[in-house]
Amino acid sequence: MISVVILGSGNVATHLFKAFNKADGIVINQWYSRNINAIASYKNDTEVIDDLSLIKDADAYILAVSDDAISELSSQLPFENRLVMHTSGSVNIYDIDKKHKRGVFYPLQTLSKDADIDFAQVPICVETIDKKCYPIIKDLAVAIGSPTKRVNSDQRRVLHLAAVFVNNFTNQLYRIGHEVTESEGAEFDLLKPLIMETAKKVQDLSPFKAQTGPAMRNDKKTIRKHLKLLENQHHKDIYELLTTSIQHTHGRKKL
Amino acid sequence: MISVVILGSGNVATHLFKAFNKADGIVINQWYSRNINAIASYKNDTEVIDDLSLIKDADAYILAVSDDAISELSSQLPFENRLVMHTSGSVNIYDIDKKHKRGVFYPLQTLSKDADIDFAQVPICVETIDKKCYPIIKDLAVAIGSPTKRVNSDQRRVLHLAAVFVNNFTNQLYRIGHEVTESEGAEFDLLKPLIMETAKKVQDLSPFKAQTGPAMRNDKKTIRKHLKLLENQHHKDIYELLTTSIQHTHGRKKL
Ligand SMILES: NC(=O)c1ccc[n+]([C@@H]2O[C@H](COP(=O)([O-])OP(=O)(O)OC[C@H]3O[C@@H](n4cnc5c(N)ncnc54)[C@H](OP(=O)(O)O)[C@@H]3O)[C@@H](O)[C@H]2O)c1
Ligand SMILES: NC(=O)c1ccc[n+]([C@@H]2O[C@H](COP(=O)([O-])OP(=O)(O)OC[C@H]3O[C@@H](n4cnc5c(N)ncnc54)[C@H](OP(=O)(O)O)[C@@H]3O)[C@@H](O)[C@H]2O)c1
Repeated sequence: MISVVILGSGNVATHLFKAFNKADGIVINQWYSRNINAIASYKNDTEVIDDLSLIKDADAYILAVSDDAISELSSQLPFENRLVMHTSGSVNIYDIDKKHKRGVFYPLQTLSKDADIDFAQVPICVETIDKKCYPIIKDLAVAIGSPTKRVNSDQRRVLHLAAVFVNNFTNQLYRIGHEVTESEGAEFDLLKPLIMETAKKVQDLSPFKAQTGPAMRNDKKTIRKHLKLLENQHHKDIYELLTTSIQHTHGRKKL
Repeated sequence: MISVVILGSGNVATHLFKAFNKADGIVINQWYSRNINAIASYKNDTEVIDDLSLIKDADAYILAVSDDAISELSSQLPFENRLVMHTSGSVNIYDIDKKHKRGVFYPLQTLSKDADIDFAQVPICVETIDKKCYPIIKDLAVAIGSPTKRVNSDQRRVLHLAAVFVNNFTNQLYRIGHEVTESEGAEFDLLKPLIMETAKKVQDLSPFKAQTGPAMRNDKKTIRKHLKLLENQHHKDIYELLTTSIQHTHGRKKL
């Protein structure tokens, strides 16, 4: 049985609480938030606290707090030599106070309090300084059904950066698709199957092989028509830049 | 029973052939390709031809050929006053020779010969000049299980443009995610669940509401770190432009 204390009450903390709470092999000793009201409704499931001096012994402490709060909160913990992890994609493992055994438990997924998530779809990127800490972190992930991957700091950083491209930037392309269709009173809903299919395609095929379309074919006529249709200069710039990027990747002639 | 003749032997023609062939209520009278070898293997399922003078009577003719070939091929058809449709997102309906009853049967999906597709996930955007042609086109779509939507030319054009954003450009962002992760020997595979989740999220939530991340939060520290990490100038430009675009959409301060 692995005992944990969760710190923070945001998106990640809440999902981890729920997943750990129903997992076999994990016991949540306490849940800390500086704002006790945020977690008070869980007081029948675990001990909720807002005072760090009350914090109990556990095998692992998970700081699921804002990136900027990780360093300070880790220093405030009134103990040392225990395993303390943060959950961030971009914060250095050395930002955790060195009095602790330090680790990273980075869920490479978009988590929001209101949306359910299946932890089988949440790869946990694990980083440790002392490799003896790895098995316990791995066991935590396995208990909630998540795949794990050991990564070093450089790898975690680029994964976080890549996540911005495939998640935030992709979502903004969906948004532009929405704006463009609605500009003529067409329905964004019609694009939803295509959005799913585009994501599905790269589950088995590399994005390189999956590429199609006017930029890939260097279909100048269509590209010109599209640029003419776009009224928003931002959208035009994005169209041109991504067209060039595709042609660059695939060795096509420039626009 | 609706009788059809399919013209062309590429991605769309092949998928339509297979879908029509197994649908109740549709009979494929003939399949034409200028290159008979491409369709010869289907000769037990239907009559395959490469000579337009042999073309038979049918309720509908589907020109699933390259955009540039639609106009000429429609003129070469040795009959008039019958329903002739193309399948393109960007070609004008008036490009079809005016001796025909003209229509568009535009499958808003990415179709490739080698990949199976469920036609329930292929919205058919229908355009007609004479609205009396609509029911037969609608019946064709219904028979293969596809949702249909009547669109006008302007709407079809913006749908095709939006499809480039949510499909080709999105796929290029996946490609950049691939390059960025592999630059440090991290695995693109780790990003696949996030790619699926990002696509799933906008099935129920608008892309506007689904947005998260450093650009949205105006997290300058992370944005700066990411720009520093990116070595490829193209990738930097795309990062900056899409960050600005998100901030513009959400009324955040500029970079
Ligand atoms: N959400 C995701 O998709 C995701 C995915 C992977 C990794 N991460 C990482 O996971 C961590 C948490 O993210 P999140 O999305 O859960 O954030 P969030 O929803 O904004 O929650 C942040 C939590 O940190 C607490 N906090 C902030 N400053 C604090 C301080 N000085 N002392 C104590 N607690 C403090 C907040 O408390 P208050 O409520 O009292 O302000 C809140 O409970 C971050 O490192 C993030 O980079 C997030
Ligand atoms: N693929 C998609 O995802 C998709 C989705 C929606 C709409 N569309 C539209 O559907 C149409 C077909 O696309 P596709 O992807 O199926 O293209 P494709 O795979 O490239 O096939 C094009 C077909 O057109 C034939 N063709 C070209 N020029 C011709 C001519 N002058 N006379 C007779 N046949 C000619 C080709 O014959 P040869 O093999 O002999 O060259 C080939 O059979 C296009 O209008 C496209 O915009 C495609």
